[in-house]
Amino acid sequence: MTTTSSTNAAESIQEQGDPVDDTRAFRRALGQFATGVTVMTTTVGERQVGMAVNSFAAVSLDPPLVSWSIRNESRSLNAFARGEHFAVNVLADDQVETSALFSRPQENAFENVSWNPGIHGDPILNDAIAHFECTVEATHEGGDHVIIIGRVNKFTRLSGAPLVFFAGQYRIAKEHPRVELTSAAPYSSTSGNGDASPLFVSLLKSTEQRMSRLFNEYRDQLGINIAGSRVINLLDDGITSITEIADQALLGESAVEDTLSDFKTRGWVGESPSGDLHLTISGKSIRSQLLEAATKFSTEKLSQISDSDIQAARRVLVHLLTT
Amino acid sequence: MTTTSSTNAAESIQEQGDPVDDTRAFRRALGQFATGVTVMTTTVGERQVGMAVNSFAAVSLDPPLVSWSIRNESRSLNAFARGEHFAVNVLADDQVETSALFSRPQENAFENVSWNPGIHGDPILNDAIAHFECTVEATHEGGDHVIIIGRVNKFTRLSGAPLVFFAGQYRIAKEHPRVELTSAAPYSSTSGNGDASPLFVSLLKSTEQRMSRLFNEYRDQLGINIAGSRVINLLDDGITSITEIADQALLGESAVEDTLSDFKTRGWVGESPSGDLHLTISGKSIRSQLLEAATKFSTEKLSQISDSDIQAARRVLVHLLTT
Repeated sequence: MTTTSSTNAAESIQEQGDPVDDTRAFRRALGQFATGVTVMTTTVGERQVGMAVNSFAAVSLDPPLVSWSIRNESRSLNAFARGEHFAVNVLADDQVETSALFSRPQENAFENVSWNPGIHGDPILNDAIAHFECTVEATHEGGDHVIIIGRVNKFTRLSGAPLVFFAGQYRIAKEHPRVELTSAAPYSSTSGNGDASPLFVSLLKSTEQRMSRLFNEYRDQLGINIAGSRVINLLDDGITSITEIADQALLGESAVEDTLSDFKTRGWVGESPSGDLHLTISGKSIRSQLLEAATKFSTEKLSQISDSDIQAARRVLVHLLTT
Repeated sequence: MTTTSSTNAAESIQEQGDPVDDTRAFRRALGQFATGVTVMTTTVGERQVGMAVNSFAAVSLDPPLVSWSIRNESRSLNAFARGEHFAVNVLADDQVETSALFSRPQENAFENVSWNPGIHGDPILNDAIAHFECTVEATHEGGDHVIIIGRVNKFTRLSGAPLVFFAGQYRIAKEHPRVELTSAAPYSSTSGNGDASPLFVSLLKSTEQRMSRLFNEYRDQLGINIAGSRVINLLDDGITSITEIADQALLGESAVEDTLSDFKTRGWVGESPSGDLHLTISGKSIRSQLLEAATKFSTEKLSQISDSDIQAARRVLVHLLTT
């Protein structure tokens, strides 16, 4: 009765096992589920409390319920799990700093963002793409976290695109390439009328998507993912604090820690007696290889095109980018 | 003590209110939280059961727990909520069909995907980017859903990029533009050595991102989002079934229903006595306006560039796209 496959999917397994044996590897596997990013806010007396959370989920439409979870050890546990109300702020793609601000214990975080009090008095962050103002409906034990169920008393949907978190990295959500192909159809038919301009925009998109995919495959062959290549670049630029690397590379701190740990094992990163990090000779060599790979990739792709066409294409792209 | 903002964020509010008064609008607001897409699988006797779910969330690392929720009215409720084990399959960006397959009641769905039985016998879908093989740890009432807490006995992380669901639409997760700017630096320094090729790939990406953003803003001014423009195109092509529109436009069925309902209100879509949908004269006019907008946008952007440069750029892009 069982259908089995003869594909070589096993070749793409990166890590597997019992989560109890390797918590960090389990966390990396959980990171394969893409999420939006929320900031949960509440008030304790006159004080505002906020934290970045990506375990938000819709639960029920009628009654309107949502859920998220908070660490038992979080210093905000009582404010949220024993509180009566909270607000969910779903962040927009240009709110990376807001996410970072609320990812770390920080005094006065609310002095550094724009907000208004909502119907329960909880901070509603401006520039978010949705708000859910909730009362705490129930809490459930969930291992090292508490699951909080909120009843939504007011929802707000705003325009804008979402900040996305995947594999420890901040991302944006883009059109699916399959749709691009579909929606290119009207462009093509229009261009059949003699005006070929619309097709150019569509062509630009399709080409960029293909190049991006090919280059990622190319880099992956070096055994370094995009997070790794960013961390190497920043280390080589002399940036060695985990929070600063996370901020500049748009990575979560866990992803930076995992990457640095991996690089130490590979001998690419060394640590001084005082704990300062640096790229080793091997690490610098890897950075050179990454640069060479990028150069080689582009050179190969453009090798059969005339210099004059490349220069013209470059003029067109620069014009579109800057005017 | 309260910081208030003078930004005009209120201008971008699309909908707000009490969820009890408008369940569909509440659902649209929930759709602002981007998610990955999972297929939950289990077995009942010899029979495999599966359903697409995007309410998955990580709960706890130690013990390893995850959660998701299932409708009280789901015909798979007993299989999952009263079962003893299930598997979570996190879908890759090329598994839109798999998501659609498991989004609808369908016999023999498992004959149309490649899978193997996992440690509990539950189907493990090949080509997914993560698997979590779970035993049911607890269930909680959650309004019109049941919240299922699973204990993860085995995790698998595979390579690949995630399928993303946002605002009723399938998407992909792309590099954040801020990172692109950062990682362009090594390209530029390399190009300073006389080899300008690497910069071309980086330039292509930056230009595409800018054009994409500008065009979305342009289309939004017509009062139609990208989902709406896709639905109009498909209706004009004579595709009128909700499931077929959803499949071809890479939209969730709720998003198609909402869009069609909105278009009926606006007079763009009519319904025959037998329930068949069609674009009205107004609807066809809107499609023409969309096409004109696309043409006008591209023409404006390219207006100050010479025809010979545009033709050369086109040759370069086609070459990169096809070789």
